[in-house]
Amino acid sequence: MDWRRLAESKREALRTAIPSAWRLAESDIPPAARLKDVVSIVPQFLSPLELQITNSPPMVIIEEVQNLNWSALEVTRAFCHRAAIAHQLTNCLAEICFEAAEKRASELDTSLRITGRTTGPLHGLPISLKDRFHVSGLETACGYVSWLGSVKSAKDEGVLVQRLRQAGAIIIAKTNVPMSMLIAETVNNIVGSTINPYNRCLSAGGACGGEGALLALRGSPMGWGSDIAGSVRIPCGFNNIFGLRPSFGRISRSGMAQNLAGLPTGASVVGPMCADLTSLTAMVKWIISSNSWQDDHEVIDLPWNEERFTSTRNRICQPGKGNGTLVFGMMSCDGEVLPHPPVRRAMRMVKDALLQSGYEVLEWNPPPHSPAADVLFQILGSTAGEEVRKAIHASHEPPIPQLSELFGSGDMEPSPTSEFWKLCDMREAFRAQYHEYWKSTRELTACRRAVDGVILPTAAHAAPPEGTFKYHAYTAIPSTLDFTTGVVPVTFADCFIDNRDVNYQPLGARDRANWHLYHEDLFDGAPVGVQVMGQRLQEEKVLAMMEAVQNALQQYRMG
Amino acid sequence: MDWRRLAESKREALRTAIPSAWRLAESDIPPAARLKDVVSIVPQFLSPLELQITNSPPMVIIEEVQNLNWSALEVTRAFCHRAAIAHQLTNCLAEICFEAAEKRASELDTSLRITGRTTGPLHGLPISLKDRFHVSGLETACGYVSWLGSVKSAKDEGVLVQRLRQAGAIIIAKTNVPMSMLIAETVNNIVGSTINPYNRCLSAGGACGGEGALLALRGSPMGWGSDIAGSVRIPCGFNNIFGLRPSFGRISRSGMAQNLAGLPTGASVVGPMCADLTSLTAMVKWIISSNSWQDDHEVIDLPWNEERFTSTRNRICQPGKGNGTLVFGMMSCDGEVLPHPPVRRAMRMVKDALLQSGYEVLEWNPPPHSPAADVLFQILGSTAGEEVRKAIHASHEPPIPQLSELFGSGDMEPSPTSEFWKLCDMREAFRAQYHEYWKSTRELTACRRAVDGVILPTAAHAAPPEGTFKYHAYTAIPSTLDFTTGVVPVTFADCFIDNRDVNYQPLGARDRANWHLYHEDLFDGAPVGVQVMGQRLQEEKVLAMMEAVQNALQQYRMG
Repeated sequence: MDWRRLAESKREALRTAIPSAWRLAESDIPPAARLKDVVSIVPQFLSPLELQITNSPPMVIIEEVQNLNWSALEVTRAFCHRAAIAHQLTNCLAEICFEAAEKRASELDTSLRITGRTTGPLHGLPISLKDRFHVSGLETACGYVSWLGSVKSAKDEGVLVQRLRQAGAIIIAKTNVPMSMLIAETVNNIVGSTINPYNRCLSAGGACGGEGALLALRGSPMGWGSDIAGSVRIPCGFNNIFGLRPSFGRISRSGMAQNLAGLPTGASVVGPMCADLTSLTAMVKWIISSNSWQDDHEVIDLPWNEERFTSTRNRICQPGKGNGTLVFGMMSCDGEVLPHPPVRRAMRMVKDALLQSGYEVLEWNPPPHSPAADVLFQILGSTAGEEVRKAIHASHEPPIPQLSELFGSGDMEPSPTSEFWKLCDMREAFRAQYHEYWKSTRELTACRRAVDGVILPTAAHAAPPEGTFKYHAYTAIPSTLDFTTGVVPVTFADCFIDNRDVNYQPLGARDRANWHLYHEDLFDGAPVGVQVMGQRLQEEKVLAMMEAVQNALQQYRMG
Repeated sequence: MDWRRLAESKREALRTAIPSAWRLAESDIPPAARLKDVVSIVPQFLSPLELQITNSPPMVIIEEVQNLNWSALEVTRAFCHRAAIAHQLTNCLAEICFEAAEKRASELDTSLRITGRTTGPLHGLPISLKDRFHVSGLETACGYVSWLGSVKSAKDEGVLVQRLRQAGAIIIAKTNVPMSMLIAETVNNIVGSTINPYNRCLSAGGACGGEGALLALRGSPMGWGSDIAGSVRIPCGFNNIFGLRPSFGRISRSGMAQNLAGLPTGASVVGPMCADLTSLTAMVKWIISSNSWQDDHEVIDLPWNEERFTSTRNRICQPGKGNGTLVFGMMSCDGEVLPHPPVRRAMRMVKDALLQSGYEVLEWNPPPHSPAADVLFQILGSTAGEEVRKAIHASHEPPIPQLSELFGSGDMEPSPTSEFWKLCDMREAFRAQYHEYWKSTRELTACRRAVDGVILPTAAHAAPPEGTFKYHAYTAIPSTLDFTTGVVPVTFADCFIDNRDVNYQPLGARDRANWHLYHEDLFDGAPVGVQVMGQRLQEEKVLAMMEAVQNALQQYRMG
């Protein structure tokens, strides 16, 4: 069948999966020229109870369901409704399973009523997943027309989805991704582009852009994505939500579609995304405590270290008390591409907030980021995107423009293995150098301890217009290092204060291209988040440091 | 300079490094035809005190030095003397640093006398290292003539050597390896072949064959090697000593020479070798507790888990008490190559001993080993041995015969990266299958818990004559799985009881070749050890299970 008909038929299936009462008329949506964002118009489509439910953070929802104040069914229906609206506003869903979700919610309600006991710690919590996780009864297209039509079964589901089900969570939808999942925007020939809910002229980011837009609009209380070079972090930063890129081996990534199968280094990791940091932390603690290593050989038997989490938090609660204070490195520019004014302002805000709260802050001058990020992308491209091209060609659909740069020409050849090993060796050398640099900061801090965490931009810009995201080093470096890295929302681009420096002398070609991209009006309203980077397998510490940053920002905003 | 002269000059330097009083005359060494082993003739060259010192296990030596009963200098000199004899009998050393060792020992003695405090937990303990670790003042030839001449400095030393020095250990020598370190025997054009001290017609195994022979003859109380597919375990099994292959990331492997640089999966790990299990365990506990992760990005911050070690030991001390009993899988043959009679007898001994001690024992029928081992070797050979060939060709020396099979023909081409990724994917699929199989043994055990450890041969034979080691799957599988695996000595080949089954019908070509290799008289006296395999990163549990096997064997031997 022609790929256009397959794609159209999938879009039609998604439309049909939305109950007619929830469908928006064209007149419901003001044109972007009149109203940039869609965040502000969502509430008008919801009942007061639906609003109350969907505005609540996950941990509150769980509590309310457990206390029988809300039924799982009404919670699920409220989120399905809001997700349907979010999708119609931003094109954020790739799979819809509202019916199955409501059915499961009813079962959970019945079970709780009869036994008096919840099914698990996430009883009744709706969740959404990047369209890469296999879910029974759904397809996993990953933005490829040729991957449509293969409905997954229970045996395809990975450890995370199994654990979510056992814990009582309810999958309501899978979210849109770019064709191949390897770009930082979200566009494919099936669903199309996912747009930014805060500024519809901009992209939601990617690869988890569907998840980012859905969570921004509270169409789901909690989502899961995967991140190979920024795919969780970029959409978090661009959509005003929290997220975590754990280190490899901490959270199971079984049961996901692959188009870089066998990649032996720098592979993607699975991470949570959520508008509420407390719930995000609880979710990471829950999954790490679930002994996934018993069911997935990739997972390290490294239990949640509550002591480490608490002790880092204590250093949050008592800043300024000598040696106990957390020390943050701060890197506003990586020396290759200077971030846009809104991003630089966000970095200044974080710095000022941290200092005001009594933390020690240090300039971060590590080994050069940009060449090391290039090595990562060369590693990922070493097979010349063999499987990506195969997946595209199978349906004869055209590659999205962003991919034509990466995988366009048909005569690309995979490199010889010896070249691949050289790249791997370069990556390891960078990791070793970075480790040395991190350790050496002992000599630079007032407390004579090495830096605890590093604050860096999520990208050189806030969410950009689709097709313009070109420089990925800011998120690629934590991936190269396999360092645990979270994202904390900070502010929004503001056309009145984030002025372009017209006399700026760019650092080079990539910097020039980025500098030319910036216009105050274009980016106005786009969220800006920052990355909080710890070292490898420091999930507990990074989550506690994210809390430190968030609290410092809150106090700072209050004056 | 001609490679022959370089090699001869190195041999001469080694001879010169042995004090003349310690040199053996030809008449000191009975011909192998008259006396197979050299283990029995070593004592005659040593003083009673030297014998007492060198026959003591490491933990006793440390205690005696700490209590000022022995000086570090006399301990070091005794081991240097015995190492010199071992080298003259088996060709086991690649680098000798007796002078530096005695100097360091004197410093430690002085420091202890003056301060009353030891320098660290290994104060005064001599140690030996595979000739792959960089050590200040020594070369790291790795069996390549072209790598001679580059004397290393302190900055080349890795975390393990640094920690050993800080703890007060004294490096007395580096031990012989095969050219390239990638074969299971020990031969090169510099030092020549390291022979088996228990039967001089046989190989000491490899790649850590020098270490194996030296430890067997007690020329060092404790050694460190590295293991990519059996290099620590094979020489342990062939030389009647204990050893551990830890999982990747548990012990630092920085500061080692590389000829598979950049290999991103299945890389070698560093492990200890020792004639005494208690000391081996103490050494692993010491290095894991030394926070190497602070200085080496590859090391996981996973502290020594004393509770896990103790609880496994408790299941050793109280076998037969229902659920608490350890359960062992047992695989005497991998279905491809049936081990020789001495190895099968060793496996039966272990089984009977475990049963007699009250443990549960189960047949181990995992996914096929042999094809998965082939995948590992294909992975390691993916660059067609580019660096190995470069290192050989640089001096114009000929490859050793064992390498001509692996890297012989000049027209080998590295595979494309996409092929390499496919191999990596196959390895991961095998790991996943194996994990499932391991978990599934819950259904098969009396206690309804999965198997704790698996006993398998170290090789399909005891130490074989040089040039005949062809089948590596028995040790390659734990490497493929990255499973923590130890070796426990069991017995010795005995020409009177290990009879060849002349009517045996081989399973295939590889089995036939192995079966033809066996002759009772040829292998007589060769040690046989078995592997004790746990899961990934289970160092504590595996060391405790090795103790269980050793204790069971001791009770069994006593009748």
